[in-house]
Amino acid sequence: MIVVLKKEASKAKQDQLIDWLKGMGLGIHISVGEYQTVLGLIGDTSKVDMDLIGSLDIVDSVKRVTDTFKCVNRQFHPDDTVVNVGDVKIGGGNFAMIAGPCSVESEEQIVGIAKAVKEAGANLLRGGAFKPRTSPYDFQGLKAEGLELLRIARKETGLPIVTEIMSVSDLPLFEDVDVLQVGARNMQNFDLLKELGHIGKPILLKRGLANTLKELLMSAEYIMASGNEQVILCERGIRTYSDYMRNTLDLSAVPMLHELSHLPVIVDPSHATGIARMVPPMALSAAACGADGLIIEVHNDPIHALCDGAQSLKPEEYAGLVKKVNAVRAAVM
Amino acid sequence: MIVVLKKEASKAKQDQLIDWLKGMGLGIHISVGEYQTVLGLIGDTSKVDMDLIGSLDIVDSVKRVTDTFKCVNRQFHPDDTVVNVGDVKIGGGNFAMIAGPCSVESEEQIVGIAKAVKEAGANLLRGGAFKPRTSPYDFQGLKAEGLELLRIARKETGLPIVTEIMSVSDLPLFEDVDVLQVGARNMQNFDLLKELGHIGKPILLKRGLANTLKELLMSAEYIMASGNEQVILCERGIRTYSDYMRNTLDLSAVPMLHELSHLPVIVDPSHATGIARMVPPMALSAAACGADGLIIEVHNDPIHALCDGAQSLKPEEYAGLVKKVNAVRAAVM
Amino acid sequence: MIVVLKKEASKAKQDQLIDWLKGMGLGIHISVGEYQTVLGLIGDTSKVDMDLIGSLDIVDSVKRVTDTFKCVNRQFHPDDTVVNVGDVKIGGGNFAMIAGPCSVESEEQIVGIAKAVKEAGANLLRGGAFKPRTSPYDFQGLKAEGLELLRIARKETGLPIVTEIMSVSDLPLFEDVDVLQVGARNMQNFDLLKELGHIGKPILLKRGLANTLKELLMSAEYIMASGNEQVILCERGIRTYSDYMRNTLDLSAVPMLHELSHLPVIVDPSHATGIARMVPPMALSAAACGADGLIIEVHNDPIHALCDGAQSLKPEEYAGLVKKVNAVRAAVM
Amino acid sequence: MIVVLKKEASKAKQDQLIDWLKGMGLGIHISVGEYQTVLGLIGDTSKVDMDLIGSLDIVDSVKRVTDTFKCVNRQFHPDDTVVNVGDVKIGGGNFAMIAGPCSVESEEQIVGIAKAVKEAGANLLRGGAFKPRTSPYDFQGLKAEGLELLRIARKETGLPIVTEIMSVSDLPLFEDVDVLQVGARNMQNFDLLKELGHIGKPILLKRGLANTLKELLMSAEYIMASGNEQVILCERGIRTYSDYMRNTLDLSAVPMLHELSHLPVIVDPSHATGIARMVPPMALSAAACGADGLIIEVHNDPIHALCDGAQSLKPEEYAGLVKKVNAVRAAVM
Repeated sequence: MIVVLKKEASKAKQDQLIDWLKGMGLGIHISVGEYQTVLGLIGDTSKVDMDLIGSLDIVDSVKRVTDTFKCVNRQFHPDDTVVNVGDVKIGGGNFAMIAGPCSVESEEQIVGIAKAVKEAGANLLRGGAFKPRTSPYDFQGLKAEGLELLRIARKETGLPIVTEIMSVSDLPLFEDVDVLQVGARNMQNFDLLKELGHIGKPILLKRGLANTLKELLMSAEYIMASGNEQVILCERGIRTYSDYMRNTLDLSAVPMLHELSHLPVIVDPSHATGIARMVPPMALSAAACGADGLIIEVHNDPIHALCDGAQSLKPEEYAGLVKKVNAVRAAVM
Repeated sequence: MIVVLKKEASKAKQDQLIDWLKGMGLGIHISVGEYQTVLGLIGDTSKVDMDLIGSLDIVDSVKRVTDTFKCVNRQFHPDDTVVNVGDVKIGGGNFAMIAGPCSVESEEQIVGIAKAVKEAGANLLRGGAFKPRTSPYDFQGLKAEGLELLRIARKETGLPIVTEIMSVSDLPLFEDVDVLQVGARNMQNFDLLKELGHIGKPILLKRGLANTLKELLMSAEYIMASGNEQVILCERGIRTYSDYMRNTLDLSAVPMLHELSHLPVIVDPSHATGIARMVPPMALSAAACGADGLIIEVHNDPIHALCDGAQSLKPEEYAGLVKKVNAVRAAVM
Repeated sequence: MIVVLKKEASKAKQDQLIDWLKGMGLGIHISVGEYQTVLGLIGDTSKVDMDLIGSLDIVDSVKRVTDTFKCVNRQFHPDDTVVNVGDVKIGGGNFAMIAGPCSVESEEQIVGIAKAVKEAGANLLRGGAFKPRTSPYDFQGLKAEGLELLRIARKETGLPIVTEIMSVSDLPLFEDVDVLQVGARNMQNFDLLKELGHIGKPILLKRGLANTLKELLMSAEYIMASGNEQVILCERGIRTYSDYMRNTLDLSAVPMLHELSHLPVIVDPSHATGIARMVPPMALSAAACGADGLIIEVHNDPIHALCDGAQSLKPEEYAGLVKKVNAVRAAVM
Repeated sequence: MIVVLKKEASKAKQDQLIDWLKGMGLGIHISVGEYQTVLGLIGDTSKVDMDLIGSLDIVDSVKRVTDTFKCVNRQFHPDDTVVNVGDVKIGGGNFAMIAGPCSVESEEQIVGIAKAVKEAGANLLRGGAFKPRTSPYDFQGLKAEGLELLRIARKETGLPIVTEIMSVSDLPLFEDVDVLQVGARNMQNFDLLKELGHIGKPILLKRGLANTLKELLMSAEYIMASGNEQVILCERGIRTYSDYMRNTLDLSAVPMLHELSHLPVIVDPSHATGIARMVPPMALSAAACGADGLIIEVHNDPIHALCDGAQSLKPEEYAGLVKKVNAVRAAVM
C-alpha cells in the first residue's frame, strides 16, 4: 500500500502517522522526493483502513499496490535513485562509464589499463579477481592478489573499483572494494543477495542468463529488503538460439526496468555479444534508449588476454566510443 | 569463389574473362563498386584454377568463399546495396522512415494517417490489407479493397506504399504496390520467396519469429537467386521467455547483418515490443547502431484500432520521434 | 457456447433446436458421442439466452466457453477423433507407425524401404518429394517424379503414403496422396491451411519451429473451420539453446494437446533430435505418454542419403524399435 | 588422455606405470571395470609420448580425449556409476523413486507423507527445508527445524532423505542428511559445488533453468574434481516460450547424458510441468527413455500445501503411477 503525503504536511504530523502505522506491525519505506513524500507500507496491509488514512489532512492519496515489488517499485519511490560511488554518481541523469579488463592479470596490466581508460573517459574501473568459469580447469582469477592489484590501480588513478564477488565467505576481502558485482550465474544465489543487503556498499546486480525482468527485480528486492538500497541493475544479454552472437542483448529491458523501478540500469555490451567489433554499436544503442551507464571490457593486449580477449576493445577504440556515447546522450536528452 | 579485378582493367578484357568463366558452366555475379569490381562465381568452382586466374594481369586477387551465402554476401558485393523506391533511397546512408497503421480500415483513416505521417517526416506509408492472424476468427484485413485505399492514400500524399503479401495467388493484386512485405510467419515460405524473385519490385523481408540470422539471409538468398536483388531485411523481435514485452528486439542483428551482407537492414520496434511507449527508445537504439530505416505503427485513434492499437503511436508522438531519430543519426555518423 | 443434449433427446427435437439456433445466425458444430451429443455454437453468442436453452427438456446443460478454440476444442467434442487413412486408423487408441526416408531418391530406394518398413511393422509410408530447405542451393526433392515413385511404392506394398505439400499451386499433384503433411515452416502459412480445409483428405500438421500449443491448435482450427476435420497434430521438437540436439522434443505437448483437443497427436523423434541413436529412446518416451503414432525416418543406406541421413534408422533397427514401442504401449494401457 | 590396460595386466606393472605417469605431474583417474581398467590422465598431457605408452605390454590402447569433460566422461569410466544411499542403489539398472512434499511443513505432515509414499513404492523421501524463492516475501522453509522433521520421518520409515542445500554456511546442519540436492538456481554456484566436492555424501545436481548439457556436466565436474564422485544428475525442465507448462521437460537429455557420462540421470516431472495431471505421463516417458529414477512431489493435501501444491500428486495417485513406471521399465529392458 502506498500513502502519498501532501507537500505541506508538517514533519510532526508525518512522524505521528508513521509511528501509528509501525504500531500496526507494518514496515514503512519512506521516499522523500522533490514534489512529494511517499510512504510504502510493507507487510500485511489487509487490516489497514484505507478510507481512514485517506481522510487525514496530511494525506493526498492512498492506493493499494498489487505488484509483488516493494522496495524496487517506482510507485513507492517515484524519483530516480542516484547511487553514489565516491564522487561518481550513477542514475538520475548521471552516466557511469565502467571499463577495464575481464581479469586482473598483473600490476603492470591493471595499472596500465586503468590509466588508459581514465584518459579515455571512464569514471570507474572494472576487473575480475574472482572469475566464475564453466569449467573447473579454466583460469579462476588471481583472487585476493587480484583485489590488491585493483587497489593499487585505484590509488594510481583515483578510479573507484568494481569487481565480482562469488561467495559470502569472501566478503571480508571486499571491505575496501567500491562496488560489488553479482554475476549472472549468481543472480538467484539468495544467500549471497541477503548478505549483500547488510553491507553499506553499492551492488551491481547482473541479470541472469535466462531470467525475466520480474526475477531480476525480485533479486534486487532481496538486497533492498535486507537494508541496502544502493543497487544498480545490469542487462548483459540473455540466452537464445542466436547463431552469430554469444547472447542476445535485450535492450528493451532498459526502458521497461526504468518504468517498473527507480533503480539505475546499466548495460554490458561486451558479455552480451562476445565480439569486440559489436560492442560500439550496442553501446551506442544502450545510450540511445536511456541506459545509466556502460560496463565495457578494455584490454591493452586483447589477443593475449587470459579470458574473453575476443570481446575486449583496445584503449584507443574505447576512447573513440566514449566520444560517440556522449554525442548520443546529448542527442536524446 | 571471388575474383577482384584491378581498377584499371579494361571493359574488353573483363568481358573476355567473364565469357570464359561462363563457358565453364558458372554463374557470374558482377558487383561494380567505386573502387573495384568483384566477380562472384556461383556453381561448382572445384575445377577452377585459382592460380591461373590470379596470374591474369587484370586480376587483383582471387579467394575461395566457404560461406553458404552467395548473392547476399558482402564479400561478393563490398558496397552497400541501395534500394530505390520511386525517389526514396534505402541503404548506403539513406534512411527509410516507414509509418502507418497496422491495418487499413477506411479511406478516411488511411488518407488521414498518410497525411499526418508525411507531415511528421515519414517517406514511405505502411498499412496492412492482407493480415496474417493466429486465429481464423480474427479480422483478416480489407484485402483488395485495402490495397485500393492504399493507392488512394499514395495519390493524395505521394508516399510510396509498403504492404504485406501472404500468398502467391494474390500477386496480380500487388502490381501497383511499391514495396512488397514478407511477414515473419512466411519468412520460410520458399514458394512465395521464389516467386518474389521474379518480380521487379523491392521486397521487405521480415525475420521470422525464431529464425537465426543465417536463415534470414538464406531466405533473402532465395529471392536474389531467382533474380530480384532489391531486398530489404527487417529485424522485428524474436521469441524468448520475455515477461513484459511481446518479443525480444535483437538489435545486435543490425551490425551483424551489415557485416555479413550488403543489403539494407531496417527495424520494426512496434511489433518487437507490442507497447507504444517502448517504441521511441527502441527506435532511437536502432538508429544508434546503424539501422537503415524504421517501420513504425502510427494510428490517429490507437484505442479503437482494429488490430494492434496498443503498440501504435499517435501522429504527434511520431513527429517528435522523427526529430530525435535524426539527431541520433547525426550523432553517430 | 456448448449445449450438451440429454441422451434420450429425440432426433426431431434436436433438429428443431438446431434450426432455431441456426436461425439466430450461429454456426453449429455437432459432435455425436457414445454417451452424449454436444452442440458447439460458433459465432456471436452474446445474445443467446442460456437460461432459456437450459430449461428445454432435451438439454442436459449449457456452458459458455471462453477459450478461443472452437472446432479443435475437446469441450465441443469430448470423444477422441479417429482419422481414417484407408484401413489404417489413427487416434482413439489406434497407433500410426509412419516410416520411410527423408527424401524419395529413386524407385529402387523407395520401394525397397517401403517393403522393409512394412515388414518391420509400419502401417504408413513417408517420403519427401517436395523438400523445404533453408538454402536455395540444397537438394529440393524430386517433386512430381517423387510423388509418382511414392505411388509405385504404395502399389507394391499397400502402405498409404504421407508426404509434404509446400504450396497451394502444387495441390493438383497431390490428388492421389493419402495424407498431406504441412511442415513446420508452413504451420502459419494461413493461405495453405485454408486451402487444405477444402479437400477431403487427412492433414498431418507439424508444430512450427518455435510455436506455442495455442498457435498449433489455431492452425488446426484454420483447416477445420474451412471444413476438413481430419487433422493429425505432430510434435517435432522446438528451437531452444540445446547444445547436443538439433531441437528440443517437447513431449509434454502430447498429454496437454490431448487435454485441450480431441485430435490425434503423433511425434517425430527423427527431426526433433537429428541423431539416429536418440530416436529409439525418444520414440519409446512418446509411446509412454500416450502419443497416437510415430513418424520416423528409415533409410537403407543412411550414410549416402541425400538429406538428413544422420538421423535415419536402418530397417533392422526400426524393426527392433517397433517391438519395444508395442511393449511400452501395452504397459501403459 | 586415456590409457586402456589389458585385462591380464599385473597389479605390480600397473602401479609402476601409474607412478611413472604421476612423476610427470599428471593426475590419474583410475576406473576399474569388469572387462578393463582405464586410466584417465588429467593435466598437461602434451608432452606425454603416446607411442611409447602404447608400446608397453600391459597397454591395450591409448587415445587423446579432446573433450573438456574428464571425471564425468564416460570415455574415462565406461561402466555406469552406481550411487549408494544406505541400502538404496541408483544407476546401473537401479531405479530411484524419490517422493515427498515440496516443503516440510510439520511433523504430522512429513511423517504421514513419508509413510504413504513408502507404502506406495518410494525408496527415498524428499522434502524442502531450505526453499529458494523468487520473492523474499514468500515462505522460505522451516530450515533447521525442517531438517529435524525429516530425520524424524526417516526414523519412522527407514527412507533415506533428500533435501536441498542453498549455502555453504548451512553445511554443518546437513551432516546427517543422506543426499544433498543442489537446486537449479545454484547449478553454477561454483563455490557451493567445490565445497560439496569435499564431503562424502551423494549430491543430486539439478540442471539449471536454461543451462546446456555441457554446463550441467561441467558443474558435476566441479564436484568430482574436488573429490566427490557420487553425483546424480537431474533433468527438471528448461525455460522456453511454452504457453501451458511451467517449463519444457527436455527428455532427450536423458539418453544424451548417458552417452556422454557414466553418472546416473533422474527426472523431476513435477517442477518441469508444474501441473499434477501432467506428472504421470511425463514420469512414464522418463522411465521409457532410460532414466535412473524419478523425483516426484507428493502431498496428502495438495490444495493447502504451502508451496507448489498444484503440481503435487496425492499418495494414491503416486501408488498407481509407481506400478505403471515399473511396467514401462520392464517393457524397455
